Amino acid sequence: MSEATEIMDFELSKEFLERFVQAVEEQEVDFIQQSLDGVNPADITELLEEFDADDSKYVLELLDPQVGARVIIELEDDLQSRFMGNFTSEETAVYIDNLDSDDGVGVLNLLPISKREEVIALVENEEKAGHLLDLLRYEDDVAGGLMGKELIKANHNWTIQRCIEEIRKQAENVQKIYSVYVVDDNTKLIGKVSLKKIILSEDNARIADIYDDEVISVETYVQEEEVAQIMRKYDLEALPVVNVRGKLVGRITIDDVLDVITEQAEEDIQMMSGISSDVEEDDSVWIISKARLPWLVIGLVGGLLGAKFISLFEAQIAIIPAMAFFIPLITATGGNVGIQSSTIIVQGLANSSAFSDSVFRRLIKMLMVALVNGTILAIIVFGIVIFTTSDQTIAITVSSALFSVVLLASFMGTITPLILHRFGVNPAIASGPFITTANDLLGLAVYFFVANQLYGL
Amino acid sequence: MSEATEIMDFELSKEFLERFVQAVEEQEVDFIQQSLDGVNPADITELLEEFDADDSKYVLELLDPQVGARVIIELEDDLQSRFMGNFTSEETAVYIDNLDSDDGVGVLNLLPISKREEVIALVENEEKAGHLLDLLRYEDDVAGGLMGKELIKANHNWTIQRCIEEIRKQAENVQKIYSVYVVDDNTKLIGKVSLKKIILSEDNARIADIYDDEVISVETYVQEEEVAQIMRKYDLEALPVVNVRGKLVGRITIDDVLDVITEQAEEDIQMMSGISSDVEEDDSVWIISKARLPWLVIGLVGGLLGAKFISLFEAQIAIIPAMAFFIPLITATGGNVGIQSSTIIVQGLANSSAFSDSVFRRLIKMLMVALVNGTILAIIVFGIVIFTTSDQTIAITVSSALFSVVLLASFMGTITPLILHRFGVNPAIASGPFITTANDLLGLAVYFFVANQLYGL
Repeated sequence: MSEATEIMDFELSKEFLERFVQAVEEQEVDFIQQSLDGVNPADITELLEEFDADDSKYVLELLDPQVGARVIIELEDDLQSRFMGNFTSEETAVYIDNLDSDDGVGVLNLLPISKREEVIALVENEEKAGHLLDLLRYEDDVAGGLMGKELIKANHNWTIQRCIEEIRKQAENVQKIYSVYVVDDNTKLIGKVSLKKIILSEDNARIADIYDDEVISVETYVQEEEVAQIMRKYDLEALPVVNVRGKLVGRITIDDVLDVITEQAEEDIQMMSGISSDVEEDDSVWIISKARLPWLVIGLVGGLLGAKFISLFEAQIAIIPAMAFFIPLITATGGNVGIQSSTIIVQGLANSSAFSDSVFRRLIKMLMVALVNGTILAIIVFGIVIFTTSDQTIAITVSSALFSVVLLASFMGTITPLILHRFGVNPAIASGPFITTANDLLGLAVYFFVANQLYGL
Repeated sequence: MSEATEIMDFELSKEFLERFVQAVEEQEVDFIQQSLDGVNPADITELLEEFDADDSKYVLELLDPQVGARVIIELEDDLQSRFMGNFTSEETAVYIDNLDSDDGVGVLNLLPISKREEVIALVENEEKAGHLLDLLRYEDDVAGGLMGKELIKANHNWTIQRCIEEIRKQAENVQKIYSVYVVDDNTKLIGKVSLKKIILSEDNARIADIYDDEVISVETYVQEEEVAQIMRKYDLEALPVVNVRGKLVGRITIDDVLDVITEQAEEDIQMMSGISSDVEEDDSVWIISKARLPWLVIGLVGGLLGAKFISLFEAQIAIIPAMAFFIPLITATGGNVGIQSSTIIVQGLANSSAFSDSVFRRLIKMLMVALVNGTILAIIVFGIVIFTTSDQTIAITVSSALFSVVLLASFMGTITPLILHRFGVNPAIASGPFITTANDLLGLAVYFFVANQLYGL
């Protein structure tokens, strides 16, 4: 990433890593402090991810707590909780004192519940401690759990001068300001003023005269996916959060939402590929195996049911072994069609506008797509089978079974995510091994049913 | 989305839509203008997506061009190009004149090449026309293609006073400022100053004394995925872009990167599910069918090859039909294992840090996971088959074939995305029907090979 850091003088190279490993082993305090001085915390995080929790703690303690705190929150969740397990409540409190409240509560949420209030009691800044207690009340997947308490709010009666004083007072607490939020005498959110406007206004101008009353906000209970959708739709870098009575209680910044969006996409992809919990390439063999096993076992059970089903036709297969040849063709096509259908529906649900199609219209459309593709595929298969085997019965059986499977798999792939969505389950799960397994069985049933009819077995 | 808009007085409801459709049909200019007055352009976009290009154009022309321009860029790409096809070069130029240069060039890129310079020549603001010509030179998937030319730059010798004058001068052009970028006498980027700092500094302070010299920037040719990764890693809402000589040439804002991230994730998911081009639920039946067909045909060819392969064992199946029972079990497990492996590798590649595992270490790890899962699955299958059929030969054949398939499919699922990545192809394609089809064939080969050995057929 040399392009990104040309102005900074730090570059993560293999050589540096080796030198640094040596420095940590031999506890070369000076080298460690000098080489990390002024380095962006995100880069230090990347470096520390190469060390175990003990060594990382050693390095972190050599850094300014303000830098250390930023390094910690850049860590991925599982590493973060492993790291934090190594710190006493006192040490944790120092780091949290150096974080914005939303990041601080993120760290607290990784601790055992019993330890959380203990740590908060040790936080020196009393205002921050109060903020943290307040934020702990929210689930971490709603607006209240994403927001920080750090923001600049201005009463509509203030002058610009007064507002700038407030910014000065809060300057250390609020790292990035974006906008000043305007409230009435009951701290009800009524608008916002951009910093640009503040700079360009006279000091004695009143907020009431210059603020923008079209401010988009969310209530504390709004789901994080919806928060992300709103911030993306309206191109917001910060979104104020209000309580049910419209009082301003916090602010969500775009960096948190970026994480939500990325994690959501990764989770969907893992669901689609039948990996049951959030694993990464550098997790242990055992963790990866465990995350992959459940869906494999379900697929296995599906396969065994399929075997049981085919065994019902043992006698027929003995007479016409050709029936067995096309089993993989039928099951694979069913699986592919099912996953395609469900993916389109899942993405449609994620991007749904205010006027989404009804279930009925969706089914009709998918049916038409299935008719088109099913017909084309059936014709191709009929042609190839008749050309290569000259066996008309087999050609008709396979192609009509294939046609029916395309139709049925499309139906399953469309209806399953819609049903899951209706019941509040992430519909992405329907694009995974679930659909494949179900469609394998469905395909086999259709295939042997059609064969039975045509062969009159 | 009523939670999001409580302070705005516009809500997209079915009733409103019906009323609006009627208003458009009967050309009720007053109703249309009044009901859209002050509404966020993103909401108007959502509304217009329900209309065809002609009706949308009618509505757009009733709006202020500044609002209309924002409505147009909020449209999805395919709708945007359909809409723009309806506008003359003169009309297009007016909208582009009202957009930031990055959005403007986005619209231009949807036009036929021959029309682009014609439109630029019609743009009234000469500075903007120059910006647009400049930006057109870049591919749209690199930093140069994502950036806008609108930014505030300050010479390091300026005072704060001078800097504020510059902001005032540029106020209309630069909607969101975030930071002022500091350059030397050769417009080389040397740092940045936040608006907060400008507000809190004395008017006669010099930029040189207060600016932050640790500014992260990218060069124009950096790929958009890397831009997104950098902005996410360092929590940036804006990223300055420099040319090869370090001169400041533009600025990328977080909203553009958010779109890149979301589109990338959707594209990966579509690739995984075997949908070959970017389709959406509300595309026409024909477009959806066409996007889905190629992978279905490839799957079909795979299935036919499988049938051909199985037919080589026709005589054996006639004698032992039970061999056919387990075909779906073997192919499905191979498919599931392959997709799991490739997904973990693909996500690992996307999040790769500076010190990624080598190919060799990755393969070893995947092999170990495969050994664990393969053993467990083989034991389960052996147990169930021996319990239900008491046929030892079949139980041994199926379980040892299954074990081998898990190993082979893991290998394929690991190596394929790594190879694709090495050759610059999006590795997500390896998690799709490609792996499934290959593993189906591989599974069949292993299964019949093992059966052949054990049965001594």
